[in-house]
Amino acid sequence: MGFAVDIAPSRRDDTTFDAEVHAGWDIGGNANGGYLLAIVGRAVTEATGKPHPVTTTAHYLAPAKAGPVTVDVDVVRSGRRHATARAALRSADATHIVALSTTADLADGGEALLVDGTPPELPDPETCARMAPAAGGPPSFAAKVDMRLHPDDGGFMDGASTGRARMRGWFRLADGEALDPLALLLASDGFPPTIFNTDLPVGWTPTVELTTHVRGVPAPGWLACAFSTRFVTGGYLEADGEIWDSAGTLVAQSRQLALVPRPSEL
Amino acid sequence: MGFAVDIAPSRRDDTTFDAEVHAGWDIGGNANGGYLLAIVGRAVTEATGKPHPVTTTAHYLAPAKAGPVTVDVDVVRSGRRHATARAALRSADATHIVALSTTADLADGGEALLVDGTPPELPDPETCARMAPAAGGPPSFAAKVDMRLHPDDGGFMDGASTGRARMRGWFRLADGEALDPLALLLASDGFPPTIFNTDLPVGWTPTVELTTHVRGVPAPGWLACAFSTRFVTGGYLEADGEIWDSAGTLVAQSRQLALVPRPSEL
Repeated sequence: MGFAVDIAPSRRDDTTFDAEVHAGWDIGGNANGGYLLAIVGRAVTEATGKPHPVTTTAHYLAPAKAGPVTVDVDVVRSGRRHATARAALRSADATHIVALSTTADLADGGEALLVDGTPPELPDPETCARMAPAAGGPPSFAAKVDMRLHPDDGGFMDGASTGRARMRGWFRLADGEALDPLALLLASDGFPPTIFNTDLPVGWTPTVELTTHVRGVPAPGWLACAFSTRFVTGGYLEADGEIWDSAGTLVAQSRQLALVPRPSEL
Repeated sequence: MGFAVDIAPSRRDDTTFDAEVHAGWDIGGNANGGYLLAIVGRAVTEATGKPHPVTTTAHYLAPAKAGPVTVDVDVVRSGRRHATARAALRSADATHIVALSTTADLADGGEALLVDGTPPELPDPETCARMAPAAGGPPSFAAKVDMRLHPDDGGFMDGASTGRARMRGWFRLADGEALDPLALLLASDGFPPTIFNTDLPVGWTPTVELTTHVRGVPAPGWLACAFSTRFVTGGYLEADGEIWDSAGTLVAQSRQLALVPRPSEL
């Protein structure tokens, strides 16, 4: 099944959508946070009647497994240009995500008045190794997407980290499916943690909160993505993302706050 | 009245706080967005029983005037380390803000493992001019706080913008009141828009969404703040903030998405 199908909810009533966390979008059994965010974003755009999730914030409360979920959407404002909704993704077991999203039609926007940045410098996708699912395991997130890390930043997989908290690479959907703004929500939480490229004694960094700004509708083709972390302090880190489309346009910015577990919690 | 008093709500029941948007925290009659966020943050920390708003996102739906408001807080998770709440600030006229916040006790955090950045370079506060309230107008936000812009970045007030979308300066409360993490929410939306230092034909940039990460409890003294914008595209801009305390510790990061009105909307 494709991404668009795997995030599509079915509307039950004014405020409730039935959806399913499909198998295969998980990492170690827990659904990827960007995939869950895209399910929420899809429900919110439908409930608000505006096509693009311009800014969406999710707080991650509990991991989600494959299975049926509901997305409750409460549209708190519906204006001419913007609509804002609160949403929650729940299963029979837990509330997994609470979110806020403001939607609009990006075609209403204006021209680029200031662009102070460029896409990350990446070798051609053909020369970057595709991230493979874990050997011997079931198909998982890495098979649903096609992620190709910058050779320097992919070194951590062979024990050769750069020492710099950065992760750059190409992103597309595995079956060549067209990327839409909802796929940008997916990409904004798709890459391995930045700090895998450092020597910090941190093995996992659960997301506390993720905010993604969709700044444009991506042109067809690969997305060039860069994530970086500047501060690992007080038990938290931020990861800042930039996503550029094949036309060299910034199409999304993201920032997440992640927990850095204490050694006693590892 | 001081900041702590002016943001303090009174608890009506499990989920409702009565509060007041006090006069004097406004800019042109509309309460500052950071001040409103601090009212919400104060209610959320009380409702969750955890002292620090680690990550808070607000979507701004309608400007708020001075007067009574309620803050509805729905605690959706209360764990050992973190609690998460949804909140809304409403008056008789409108819902002004909807917010999500995760709270914790920052004293539970760990040491600094990575710090890739330094406070902005600012001349001593004594040599930076204090931002004055508009001449002839009533006391307003600029009188409640003590903001001193970097001389370069304050030039826009005299028609001499730097051409760079950046705003740096010192921040404290006007009466020398101690700064707590809630005051960081205030500071994260306190400075003039970054793009006042560009030549773009943009006169106002209403906040769509503001996310503030509180990364530390500030040491006493001035806060050194820096805000910058890299992309003004598609009718939106982001403003990224860093707030450092007097000990040289990063205590907050913020990002807001603001609307860039089209010429026809000015």
